[in-house]
Amino acid sequence: MRMGHSLSVLTVWSGLILLPLALGGATPAADDVCAHVDPFIGADGGGNVVPGPCLPFGLVKLSPDCDLDFSNSGYVSGRPVVGFSHVHVSGTGGGPKYGNVLVMATTGGPDPRDHASPAAAETACPGYFGTTLTRYGIKAELSATQRTGFLRYTFPPTAAANVLIDAGSFLGRNYDHPSEKQELVGAEIRIINSTTVEGYTRVRGGWNIGDAYTVFFHAVFDTPATAFGTWKNDRMTPDGRNEFDSGEPAGAYFTFDTRSNHTVQAKVGISFLGCEKARHNLEQENPGWDFEAVRRSATASWRQALGTVTVEGGDASLRREFYTALYHSLLMPVDKTGENPRWHSSEPYYDDFYAIWDTFRTSLPLLTLLKESTQVAIVRSLIDIAENDGYLPDARSGDCNGRTQGGSNADVVIADACAKDLPGIDYARALRAMRRDAEVPPGGDERKQGRGGLADYRSLGYVSATHERSGSRTIEYAADDWATAQVARKVGDEATSRQYLQQAGNWRNLWRPVTDHGATGFIMPRRADGTWVDEVTSDDGHGAKVVPFTVLSAGSWNDVFYESHSWEYSFYVPHDVKALIGACGGRDAFVARLDTFFREGFFHVDNEPGFLTPLLYDYAGRPDRTAEAVVRLRNTHYNDTRSGLPGNDDSGAMSSLFVFHCLGFFPNAGQDVYLIGSPAFARSVIRMENGREVVIVAHGVSRENIYIQSATLNGQPLDRAWFRHAEIRQGATIEFEMGPKPSAWGTSTPPPSASDHASATTSEPTTRVR
Amino acid sequence: MRMGHSLSVLTVWSGLILLPLALGGATPAADDVCAHVDPFIGADGGGNVVPGPCLPFGLVKLSPDCDLDFSNSGYVSGRPVVGFSHVHVSGTGGGPKYGNVLVMATTGGPDPRDHASPAAAETACPGYFGTTLTRYGIKAELSATQRTGFLRYTFPPTAAANVLIDAGSFLGRNYDHPSEKQELVGAEIRIINSTTVEGYTRVRGGWNIGDAYTVFFHAVFDTPATAFGTWKNDRMTPDGRNEFDSGEPAGAYFTFDTRSNHTVQAKVGISFLGCEKARHNLEQENPGWDFEAVRRSATASWRQALGTVTVEGGDASLRREFYTALYHSLLMPVDKTGENPRWHSSEPYYDDFYAIWDTFRTSLPLLTLLKESTQVAIVRSLIDIAENDGYLPDARSGDCNGRTQGGSNADVVIADACAKDLPGIDYARALRAMRRDAEVPPGGDERKQGRGGLADYRSLGYVSATHERSGSRTIEYAADDWATAQVARKVGDEATSRQYLQQAGNWRNLWRPVTDHGATGFIMPRRADGTWVDEVTSDDGHGAKVVPFTVLSAGSWNDVFYESHSWEYSFYVPHDVKALIGACGGRDAFVARLDTFFREGFFHVDNEPGFLTPLLYDYAGRPDRTAEAVVRLRNTHYNDTRSGLPGNDDSGAMSSLFVFHCLGFFPNAGQDVYLIGSPAFARSVIRMENGREVVIVAHGVSRENIYIQSATLNGQPLDRAWFRHAEIRQGATIEFEMGPKPSAWGTSTPPPSASDHASATTSEPTTRVR
Repeated sequence: MRMGHSLSVLTVWSGLILLPLALGGATPAADDVCAHVDPFIGADGGGNVVPGPCLPFGLVKLSPDCDLDFSNSGYVSGRPVVGFSHVHVSGTGGGPKYGNVLVMATTGGPDPRDHASPAAAETACPGYFGTTLTRYGIKAELSATQRTGFLRYTFPPTAAANVLIDAGSFLGRNYDHPSEKQELVGAEIRIINSTTVEGYTRVRGGWNIGDAYTVFFHAVFDTPATAFGTWKNDRMTPDGRNEFDSGEPAGAYFTFDTRSNHTVQAKVGISFLGCEKARHNLEQENPGWDFEAVRRSATASWRQALGTVTVEGGDASLRREFYTALYHSLLMPVDKTGENPRWHSSEPYYDDFYAIWDTFRTSLPLLTLLKESTQVAIVRSLIDIAENDGYLPDARSGDCNGRTQGGSNADVVIADACAKDLPGIDYARALRAMRRDAEVPPGGDERKQGRGGLADYRSLGYVSATHERSGSRTIEYAADDWATAQVARKVGDEATSRQYLQQAGNWRNLWRPVTDHGATGFIMPRRADGTWVDEVTSDDGHGAKVVPFTVLSAGSWNDVFYESHSWEYSFYVPHDVKALIGACGGRDAFVARLDTFFREGFFHVDNEPGFLTPLLYDYAGRPDRTAEAVVRLRNTHYNDTRSGLPGNDDSGAMSSLFVFHCLGFFPNAGQDVYLIGSPAFARSVIRMENGREVVIVAHGVSRENIYIQSATLNGQPLDRAWFRHAEIRQGATIEFEMGPKPSAWGTSTPPPSASDHASATTSEPTTRVR
Repeated sequence: MRMGHSLSVLTVWSGLILLPLALGGATPAADDVCAHVDPFIGADGGGNVVPGPCLPFGLVKLSPDCDLDFSNSGYVSGRPVVGFSHVHVSGTGGGPKYGNVLVMATTGGPDPRDHASPAAAETACPGYFGTTLTRYGIKAELSATQRTGFLRYTFPPTAAANVLIDAGSFLGRNYDHPSEKQELVGAEIRIINSTTVEGYTRVRGGWNIGDAYTVFFHAVFDTPATAFGTWKNDRMTPDGRNEFDSGEPAGAYFTFDTRSNHTVQAKVGISFLGCEKARHNLEQENPGWDFEAVRRSATASWRQALGTVTVEGGDASLRREFYTALYHSLLMPVDKTGENPRWHSSEPYYDDFYAIWDTFRTSLPLLTLLKESTQVAIVRSLIDIAENDGYLPDARSGDCNGRTQGGSNADVVIADACAKDLPGIDYARALRAMRRDAEVPPGGDERKQGRGGLADYRSLGYVSATHERSGSRTIEYAADDWATAQVARKVGDEATSRQYLQQAGNWRNLWRPVTDHGATGFIMPRRADGTWVDEVTSDDGHGAKVVPFTVLSAGSWNDVFYESHSWEYSFYVPHDVKALIGACGGRDAFVARLDTFFREGFFHVDNEPGFLTPLLYDYAGRPDRTAEAVVRLRNTHYNDTRSGLPGNDDSGAMSSLFVFHCLGFFPNAGQDVYLIGSPAFARSVIRMENGREVVIVAHGVSRENIYIQSATLNGQPLDRAWFRHAEIRQGATIEFEMGPKPSAWGTSTPPPSASDHASATTSEPTTRVR
């Protein structure tokens, strides 16, 4: 009945609502960089990006929740909207996190158990989301500031227009991996008057299996409600004002008369500290009632953030892919400075590193180029977290160091800043945090922080096969040790630097001379007594059985390699590719091995361990092959549809990978080195925070002309397929002559490797196998 | 100036105030059990008990804070009162915890930086505290419910009577051990109207080095203020209503006109969840304004709790010591059921186990006798904590498993419940928690929870000397293993029981045949290679130096033995005293060793490791010596002054030890065994929760007649110096004939030991030293 009624209302209202919006500038002007962003790219198809509005690194990401059970972003195309909640993480996988303080508009009798509505006419751009809730004929529009949400509802004319604020809603409640479910800890509701309500929702769990976090809110309406009430579980309390925290879901509803004024606006201040702070945030950031002004301000923030890069050439679709990827790259982590409920500090505070394992390779190096000061703040925040919380985080969310997938990869983030000489960071303090990661076992839950299996690693030189992820952990620890060595050298601690440089060769301790598809030598699991593991126990759900362990045995948390197999991980020696090439039998064998890797489909672009692999050809004198791999990657795995990302965006990791590959170079994270790929645009300009520009010109670039024939850096010949951050940080112009065929360019001077300069320390294993 | 003025006012007001109180029943009637309690016993002299009012296991302990820097209880006799804060722990040592939501009354201009007042005419009884703030001539009276405080201030006639509520105050801010300091994380103030204010204070740290906890409050006055305002740091805001959380201290003041009505009453609801819950707690527990009624109710709760034990005989001083000790035994842990901000559970929730290392020996066994249902709730809470937080706690406070001093002693609490057949506990779930303690290393911070040095213990059969507290940990783990074995047997897991029974003999692995003062065989530090440690590095503040390690080398966190030396710890094999006697060379050598221990002053009654030692004579057929030690202990180390406890009350551990020693028996925690000492009273009656009574009659007991000549249990001869819980749980009468000389009574049937029944498993070491 209601559905029918609403639909008929919709017929009337959709025209009235949508037309003024279209006229009023619903979409950015065509010459606006924001016009190239489609927040729906990657919203489906496993990309899990949040389509709703936020600011760069915004704490509030106000976005529709359509699936409270399984969706990570909350959003699912075509699914009814349950409501719009204020806190989300973008692009994540596994057990959903957040989805707190859900606000929904309905008509008729308010019913917190049944209010989801199909949606139509969705539009989104940076700083704005609009949709029509067709069940009710309500136009819902969202915008946001850093810590507040702004919701504008245009109702049909009715005396029973409702806004529900649900402090008991959250994502992932029925996620099928029990330990990754979110669970409600408690909720509080306090209606202050007919225009004001506040409270909190307290939730624990989620993918990072985090401690309880509390999202406080202070919400105001621009229109006095004609009635209001509260609920707890299934019990409605008309005229109720308060629901104390009894560990149960609770909410508030407000009923408005929209027969003369159709619009009801709500603003919601969010804080992780308290309700008064939420109110303060609202007063500071979002004091008025001009939705369009807030929206313009949000869009202007994005215009500034995205405007740091200008591209020319490429088609509209590619530009849309590019700028949307750039947009995605600036969503995470979350700037929670001034919102840390765990300790008081004058340092910046970033949360929702989800996970650094994902973002250290591309997202954070990209940020270093685009907004160095933010990257400095993030690194300072990491150090502050380590000093106050014990360890550097890998996947921190909800103010809790939650889970570590691979190594202690924050080490690489710090080393990257150190290598690029980022100012304002106390590298001596950073080194202490890195050494704690590497020297003090994290214990009980070895998945939480630091390095699991550390005792093995320190005594044997590798993590033995009795520990989960012994393969991926060992080679990541070796890379992290190299990172630590660099920072130790920077602060003059030569003894520590030497020790860690030696440990950086530990990947060799798992290098086993097995042959597969013509390639010899792979990272393989090994027991503490030095013997190799040939069989593992596998459980496919039909009972455990012993199976052979091969170089293509893929795994997850409990296995030898996290989220991939030895074929992929055996390329992961980013600090010493020269030594890796040697271990693989020299340049030719290495190139053949790479060819096999890509040809046989062993490469998984949707996963981070292989991010650097297409660039490894550069180390073997074959930048042409790198170009081919990069172009193939761009063209095959990315597009501008809602399923346009190759998988979970992983907090922007997949998107920032794409950004670099369009620009034509790629960071080897932790080093001051960029590896050259194949630029997509005829001209790209990066405006750095110091006012200097990095200009990349690709003369003659086209679908066929993907190969670099020659290059110059600031007018001087550049006959290498790499350059240093130091060479561009004061501005630079890099010009490429592109052609349809491979050339000899860049083949003779490989990028640097640890064993270029080192004594035998990094090329000799430190194995102390008995 | 103000001081002079106030003093003259005091002259007038003290008479007016104090007389009616004295007439109105300020102190309990002489026949009231509460009349025997003096909350000031142990308030000084390091006892650190909280003298202010609370309910048994009350969340709110409203008490004067005189020293914000160093005092654990906040209170120091003779020191000016800074204010009355709502959350305290009683009897603790080390870095102070809590001291939150401080309320103070002043006259004149409100000054949050300078308002401490000397106090006079302090009176306290269970449920009540009264004092006169002589600087202002204000009578301050306090009472409490489980989660609320009630403050009655009687002011001089003035238009400038102030009440200050400080959300930035806490204890231990300048404690000299930096890691044990508390630190403010943030504070919020919201004045709702002239009679209502709420907010929170968020603090981290303290002795248990805990995560941030948040104490929310909702406070109301019975009188509208004529003015109010707020402050943050040093900035006062007259007429201000809100202070948002910026990580700085903040508070509110209210000014009243007391020229006609001299009394201003304030009630403060406290919650660890939120302000609305604090308000709910206030409405539920403390709805009216009848201070006397609340006070009567609080006192009645204590009358009921203390009335479970009736004693006859002894002088008034001894009864005061006894009932005050009983009172102290029921202050901690804290019942926070419904106040857990970390997870939602239908299980009970107790916090502030501070520490179980202190309380498992006497406090909790006493509670089992007096109020079994509360002990069941505590055990269930422990299991719930382990399941939701990873490990059973040792010293949990502020909702954070904080620190582990010795073994995983919660194991013994569970085993004690299991041995005494306490109902309503899922012992299979408990066993899983105990096994996690014993099998999964706690890692990074090995002091936090579980068992530090566990890998050693599991592989070597002892904790090697490279780990801190290797000696005390090893022997405690062995005892804890025995406890685990008992629970495993109870749930039918014979394999686990056998394994842990075997491990229970691990104390032997550190038993070294050195001789001191005629005693041979001591627990001594040992390296992983099996060699003994003869020297340790000691740092007395003048630089580290190598010193010999002896059986009297005392230690702390970093040393071989926690808070004692090998002489004391080498008696700690509570589960197998028979085997210990054997290791010491037999009964005579053991008795001589005990004699030496007490004679030479190696016994430290103020510390828990030796709690059981006076009773060990019972195992060697010398209950007369136990009687002497017990009587000496009672008479020498306890009295009824403010310094009447031998040291930190340790959450009531010292007090409950005294209670047992007055009753004449003593628990061997984790077993269903009570060891008989020497009763202090002619007749004691314990009324258990099941309505049955345990009656202990000591015919002829006197200062001289301390030795038991004969005994009966329910009229049948009892010729052993011990009995089982099963023998008294349905009620029992135990009669002793006392005499002035030792007798042959109780010498022939020693209490049970693990090696009574066992095969060789517990008497053979499990050492796998290489």
